Amino acid sequence: MTISPFDKNLDKVKANYVPLTPVSFLQRSAHVYPNLTSVIYEERCFTWKETFERCRRFASFLDQYGIRRGDTVAVMLPNVPAMVESHFSIPMIGAIIHAINIRLDAASIAFQLDHGGAKVLLVDPEFADLIREAIALLSGPKPLIVDVRDNHFSSAAIGDIDYETALVPGDPAFAWHHPNDEWDAIALSYTSGTTGDPKGVVTHYRGAYLSAVSTILAGNLGQHPVYLWTLPMFHCNGWCFPWTLAAAAGINVCLRKVEPTRIFELIKQHGVTHTCGAPIVYNMLINAPDTFERNAARGVVGLIAGAAPPVAVLEGAESIGIKLTHVYGLTEVYGPASVCAEQPGWDELPAAERAKMKSRQGVPYHLQTPSRS
Amino acid sequence: MTISPFDKNLDKVKANYVPLTPVSFLQRSAHVYPNLTSVIYEERCFTWKETFERCRRFASFLDQYGIRRGDTVAVMLPNVPAMVESHFSIPMIGAIIHAINIRLDAASIAFQLDHGGAKVLLVDPEFADLIREAIALLSGPKPLIVDVRDNHFSSAAIGDIDYETALVPGDPAFAWHHPNDEWDAIALSYTSGTTGDPKGVVTHYRGAYLSAVSTILAGNLGQHPVYLWTLPMFHCNGWCFPWTLAAAAGINVCLRKVEPTRIFELIKQHGVTHTCGAPIVYNMLINAPDTFERNAARGVVGLIAGAAPPVAVLEGAESIGIKLTHVYGLTEVYGPASVCAEQPGWDELPAAERAKMKSRQGVPYHLQTPSRS
Repeated sequence: MTISPFDKNLDKVKANYVPLTPVSFLQRSAHVYPNLTSVIYEERCFTWKETFERCRRFASFLDQYGIRRGDTVAVMLPNVPAMVESHFSIPMIGAIIHAINIRLDAASIAFQLDHGGAKVLLVDPEFADLIREAIALLSGPKPLIVDVRDNHFSSAAIGDIDYETALVPGDPAFAWHHPNDEWDAIALSYTSGTTGDPKGVVTHYRGAYLSAVSTILAGNLGQHPVYLWTLPMFHCNGWCFPWTLAAAAGINVCLRKVEPTRIFELIKQHGVTHTCGAPIVYNMLINAPDTFERNAARGVVGLIAGAAPPVAVLEGAESIGIKLTHVYGLTEVYGPASVCAEQPGWDELPAAERAKMKSRQGVPYHLQTPSRS
Repeated sequence: MTISPFDKNLDKVKANYVPLTPVSFLQRSAHVYPNLTSVIYEERCFTWKETFERCRRFASFLDQYGIRRGDTVAVMLPNVPAMVESHFSIPMIGAIIHAINIRLDAASIAFQLDHGGAKVLLVDPEFADLIREAIALLSGPKPLIVDVRDNHFSSAAIGDIDYETALVPGDPAFAWHHPNDEWDAIALSYTSGTTGDPKGVVTHYRGAYLSAVSTILAGNLGQHPVYLWTLPMFHCNGWCFPWTLAAAAGINVCLRKVEPTRIFELIKQHGVTHTCGAPIVYNMLINAPDTFERNAARGVVGLIAGAAPPVAVLEGAESIGIKLTHVYGLTEVYGPASVCAEQPGWDELPAAERAKMKSRQGVPYHLQTPSRS
């Protein structure tokens, strides 16, 4: 017998393979940890079982409405539960999540909605006026608008239906599907378009799956991290963290607005273990008045992205107890793809030297596939 | 514009994808942690840089000898450094590692060598006589025999060349290759064959890669675990741990023979954090005389496979400080694929109740893809 890589049994396996999809992480956590907390937002709190059911309900709503594989569903949402849920409900039917940068103007939003061909758009009340303006500028068909209401932000409804209302008739046991192919598109994001119009970036299920897992290793998240959403979820799908937290059965602590007092409060209240952000977020925390409960941040691990962070930021974060890990990436690679992997012995270095080391070294994420060469 | 999952750009990505291979974990650890310890065996100690170089040297030796993609290279080795290295050097050239159960008799070994078509066979001196006997029984061509000498086990050489001698002219910068396809065969194992002859199980690169990572999550290994090799590496490729430890940049503490005194010594000497084994291994440790340094095991996490472990074993392990996690699997799924995922609150239960919970619950590994249905 010859064991050939082209053995016909392997061909059979390959023809019947189950595509990788990050939705399976949600399925697993709902099955394994049904009663553990998945998402917290102000006074609202969901378990993994509930989140899975809510996602299936919304997926069935989208399906009923006629959304099919390859269709685009856009979201204009801050870091609220519906934003976490969209990262699962939309891929559950093979549709593509298009998360819009909430800081854009109406013209840019209209361009993206037209270009991406969104058939549905979820809108937070904070952006109701802006979206009304953007819709008026569309040249293509108008998407179905779904209002995501919020007790903490009142505004007139602009939508065709409200999110919670759409969930009610939805099927909590909806038979979500795997993609036909793990290379199918899962998400559409637009880069800022420094030259001309924004450029669309299409990512796939396989990459989202592998990146989500890779983050657990690079950030040493372990099981059940408590994650504070200081990073906007529209930004490269929140660096894949909605999927990462489902894989690690962690807690999504939602946050509408990056604001130091509230951040320190939430860290203390929920025992936050991890957070992500740009240097400006950490600068805000470092420079918060001493009256804030800055000690609450002691022990939090913060991933910080962008160019090498200034030593002052690294040292400053340490002074309030936050341990920063520098990462770097881009939209095209699902967010961060390189990390400053701490070396044994660094903890014994003086803070300034350690900060220097931390701001210089960058190595690939664990599951970052090297080139063939 | 329509973002289609069958977009031609995605097709292009797919056509040029880099196949998943666990060899990339070794490459990464050699790059990121060149000077951290990779493998310890008695007085020998290697770093990740050295292990990577040794593997490339042996891969280049195999390549020079004429081993090609899809060829089988067999190993008859206990848990020694060459066994760890074989899990990388052989796949580096697309060949298939066939790890032989070291407890088999000559006739069974001859059957497997013939059936698997091994072109090279690595042999530990402990099995020299047995292999000489098996070779005499072959009906097919005789493989090239490579002696893996050992200062701790003297025996007459039976091979055509010795492992360390083969490494010398080998190229430490050998350009190893990714598999052509991640579904190519990486390993061949034989099940015990309770009915008739042993049955061959062929596993692929993709599965080995995903299983290796899944184990980090299921076992909560974190970064840099110190792993004691009580589990035979011939058994389902040591449950993928050679690849897992490369991904986690941990330490392989090698062990020729499962023997309580030596196990407790090694745990103490190297600060072992994790180990794996069948219930009998843990029973041996639990029942070791009190004169042994059983306290050394305090804090070690032990994965235990097989049927639900008896409460006595779970309680006994706890009594000497080993925290057991029950896993279950089979050769066809790369070793363990289900785990008893501990639930919050179990630590507060009385030991007997906790043991009951631990012996009953089994859930899929994180990256275990559910069926399409």
